[in-house]
Amino acid sequence: MNNPSPITLSSICEAAERISSYIKHTPVLQSEVINKLTGANVFLKCENLQNIGAFKMRGASNAVLSLSEEECKRGITTHSSGNHAQAIALAARNRGIKAIIVMPENAPAIKTNAVVSYGAEIVFCKPTLAAREAAVDKVVAETGAFVIHPYNNYKVIEGQATACLELMEEIEGLDIIITPVGGGGLLSGTSLSAHFLHPEIQVFGAEPEGADDAFRSLQEGRIVPSLNPKTIADGLLTSLGDKTFPIIRQYVKGILLVSDEEIVKAMKLLHKEYGLFVEPSGTVAFAALLKNKERFQGKKVGIILSGGNIDKEAFQNI
Amino acid sequence: MNNPSPITLSSICEAAERISSYIKHTPVLQSEVINKLTGANVFLKCENLQNIGAFKMRGASNAVLSLSEEECKRGITTHSSGNHAQAIALAARNRGIKAIIVMPENAPAIKTNAVVSYGAEIVFCKPTLAAREAAVDKVVAETGAFVIHPYNNYKVIEGQATACLELMEEIEGLDIIITPVGGGGLLSGTSLSAHFLHPEIQVFGAEPEGADDAFRSLQEGRIVPSLNPKTIADGLLTSLGDKTFPIIRQYVKGILLVSDEEIVKAMKLLHKEYGLFVEPSGTVAFAALLKNKERFQGKKVGIILSGGNIDKEAFQNI
Repeated sequence: MNNPSPITLSSICEAAERISSYIKHTPVLQSEVINKLTGANVFLKCENLQNIGAFKMRGASNAVLSLSEEECKRGITTHSSGNHAQAIALAARNRGIKAIIVMPENAPAIKTNAVVSYGAEIVFCKPTLAAREAAVDKVVAETGAFVIHPYNNYKVIEGQATACLELMEEIEGLDIIITPVGGGGLLSGTSLSAHFLHPEIQVFGAEPEGADDAFRSLQEGRIVPSLNPKTIADGLLTSLGDKTFPIIRQYVKGILLVSDEEIVKAMKLLHKEYGLFVEPSGTVAFAALLKNKERFQGKKVGIILSGGNIDKEAFQNI
Repeated sequence: MNNPSPITLSSICEAAERISSYIKHTPVLQSEVINKLTGANVFLKCENLQNIGAFKMRGASNAVLSLSEEECKRGITTHSSGNHAQAIALAARNRGIKAIIVMPENAPAIKTNAVVSYGAEIVFCKPTLAAREAAVDKVVAETGAFVIHPYNNYKVIEGQATACLELMEEIEGLDIIITPVGGGGLLSGTSLSAHFLHPEIQVFGAEPEGADDAFRSLQEGRIVPSLNPKTIADGLLTSLGDKTFPIIRQYVKGILLVSDEEIVKAMKLLHKEYGLFVEPSGTVAFAALLKNKERFQGKKVGIILSGGNIDKEAFQNI
């Protein structure tokens, strides 16, 4: 089998070492109520409690800390309306370099405020992918800034892979790991960590029905882009990239689809039984477990809760 | 053996039913890291996630909901600088009756604000027990208001007993339960629930070394009041009452003492391994487990985290 990426166990372990001062070793929680409800032994890796409230801090930190001094001088840029923007802004501040983040003009104030509070500069653009990419190109042309893609970047994937490393270190004998999948950074990284250390673990991606491009891509054996995705899980609208897809194709067992209704139900259950506020995108893996409990009966299942950036008032109204 | 109180299994179950719409069935959390660290199988009952952020909502709700229509007309009063004030204010609002809370003039704004936000009236007084009791007496003389003591009240004790009821329902086969002890409402209620349903469970109280009146009271076989208590656990400064002491004396296995340093260490560990913000008073039972891990090796241990009302910024500075 060809190696689908240049990432190795060593490079993931080096990433874990490199980012260790900038990220949290997040808690892994269990609940007997959920074990009884699912018939599985369930372990929640709480990346919703990660710095900036999402796993994105891992990949962004690894990418920024891996830059050469020369690249640092040029500064960095990316486009994002969500957690990657905050992660890049904070990672840049941690390294003391300049970051320019392209954000759509309709990005929520809570997110733009966070980016500004980390000292990054925001360039606003129209809320289309084309406008966002054009704005990043312009930043690069004017400043020479280094672009850090939110998922289609091996350093980012290595960083995201470290969450699974922690989970497997802490919980022995896992049979299954499920993570959300949007662009595939977390899922591809997770599947690599599991493959290198515990190839007996089956890794699944979980995806909203309204943005099922990863599901279709695996079915068709090629990257099928997300067309007009529509889901409450606003962090999972993106399509797989040419770096994440081959890894996922090789090491991921399957993609589990869930409806928005199932996501909301899972969010409420996470709050009731663990006291957690998890955003819709961060909940899909847990929702997929609930939906497929017959399949995972009697198994030791690790679930990555990937992000918690949801307004508590918005949460109550869901 | 004489029955040390009029409380029965039925009256606790009725309390649970009575308050069920006003309180949260709180999560019970587990962590493999903590199980390995302690050598025990540890279950945390998260009353820090209870309404108003503490178990006090249970007892206050049961007491307020048990009032006759006639008593309701008179309104209710109490003195408290802490969680009981908030619990009584909210319980009164839930029943639609008037509450006047006597609070010391040095009570933190965050707590007085919460009380006002629930619609209660505050009467300020000097920060001494004598001044607080005199102010309550004055309220009673002027308004005829019904006094609800924070712990020396059987309806309050019954309400606090319901947290243990939920814990035992959810987790089968517990060997040990540990709760904090201040005035003894939670500890006495817990020991009664365990005695009625699972007398094989050993119930312990956990107390700060700097306010060890419950420890000394059990040793001497009489209520030894707290003299100049000094501890970071500001909710545990009170002494046992004549209703809580006999129950604790009969059904509690022992009192475990912890230092302030051990409390702070335990608070940090709860945050690191469970993502929880627990106030010092709410942490003492967990701190006592950590200190006595040889004693509880191999046991199934339930811990009540009793309150979470701590400013997040204050938490970082601890």
